[in-house]
Amino acid sequence: MKRAVVLLSGGLDSATVLAMAVADGWHCHALSVDYGQRHRAELDAAANVARALGAAEHRVVPLDLTIFGGSALTDASIAVPTAPAPGIPVTYVPARNTIFLSLALAYAEVTRSEAIFAGMNAVDYSGYPDCRPEFLEAFENLANLATKRAVEGNSITIRAPIVRMAKKEIVRRGHELGVDFSLTVSCYNADAEGRACGSCDSCRLRREGFAAAGLADPTRYRR
Amino acid sequence: MKRAVVLLSGGLDSATVLAMAVADGWHCHALSVDYGQRHRAELDAAANVARALGAAEHRVVPLDLTIFGGSALTDASIAVPTAPAPGIPVTYVPARNTIFLSLALAYAEVTRSEAIFAGMNAVDYSGYPDCRPEFLEAFENLANLATKRAVEGNSITIRAPIVRMAKKEIVRRGHELGVDFSLTVSCYNADAEGRACGSCDSCRLRREGFAAAGLADPTRYRR
Repeated sequence: MKRAVVLLSGGLDSATVLAMAVADGWHCHALSVDYGQRHRAELDAAANVARALGAAEHRVVPLDLTIFGGSALTDASIAVPTAPAPGIPVTYVPARNTIFLSLALAYAEVTRSEAIFAGMNAVDYSGYPDCRPEFLEAFENLANLATKRAVEGNSITIRAPIVRMAKKEIVRRGHELGVDFSLTVSCYNADAEGRACGSCDSCRLRREGFAAAGLADPTRYRR
Repeated sequence: MKRAVVLLSGGLDSATVLAMAVADGWHCHALSVDYGQRHRAELDAAANVARALGAAEHRVVPLDLTIFGGSALTDASIAVPTAPAPGIPVTYVPARNTIFLSLALAYAEVTRSEAIFAGMNAVDYSGYPDCRPEFLEAFENLANLATKRAVEGNSITIRAPIVRMAKKEIVRRGHELGVDFSLTVSCYNADAEGRACGSCDSCRLRREGFAAAGLADPTRYRR
């Protein structure tokens, strides 16, 4: 059976990606990172999503990125914006996806996986540089030089199947595949129970996605 | 003053690289990773080296790679070989340098550094894929697509100034720059006091380097 590592944040996008990988017959090793994120409730969501969608395994790596800070998600003194602003927002976490993919690469090597699935999206997104197709291509190129497994002839592919999809398409695709979106948490300000603020960038993109898809939004809002 | 992140393991190579960067006028943010390595004494060595060579700062990131294992350095059940063998040795740690460079990239972004210095060497080395120049070039390419800082026009370079040097040249260069090699720990089996086994691959390369350089070997051996 073909094996893959799937980066799973606990949000809508990566849940859909996991569902796509499982539907496509992959044996999925789900990986989440406990990085000191403000919205730690997404880790419980990731565990629930992994279980519900039939991941073979789910691991959570502790890596405290608050040691570097530099983001509203990893520095409590920087507020999460509640209105769109020009440029890359302060919720960008320095080198986060590079770090996450690197950890996924280690996990892929020990599980003898031939692919890493990730939920990056470059359409309805916040403009993070490490969500763009050219970034993902550069990582794939790196990954095939980086490991013992690659040198021994086992190439690895980085798969971001939703990278060019609009949010409404992602929502529809996840819905078709039976993703229970009520289990997922997208909000940057989610409380301990996973209830959303409704006003951050991530909440806005998610809400607009459900509306555009014409599907009921199961998000639990605080207010 | 130009700023850089310097990956510092506590061994001979990265100590020399730090000395080279400091001598070249860089304001150095040293970074070590507490990854569950068997030779944890290298972390104390790194702190002493950073202090002795005048790093502006030294941070240690805890990231437990024993969660993945797959190496003699991160899995206590796999012994460190005491004789050379063909192929990439079991001391290779899956994706380690990719992970370390990713963490350095995050640190570089928050410190507004324009370079990452690293002590990879592809001459007198153990054949690890993530020590080769082509790997480092691929990482530099990735790094310049990955961050907000890069997108805003601040490029970053990955500098591995000893990558093509023989071990004896590294030893001589470090000696010229005043590196106190007695502070460094290279041995994969180092005990808590940093005393070396004398028989692992890393000890062998180090000992041969001092001998070929015609310099006294200050390594403290257990036997």
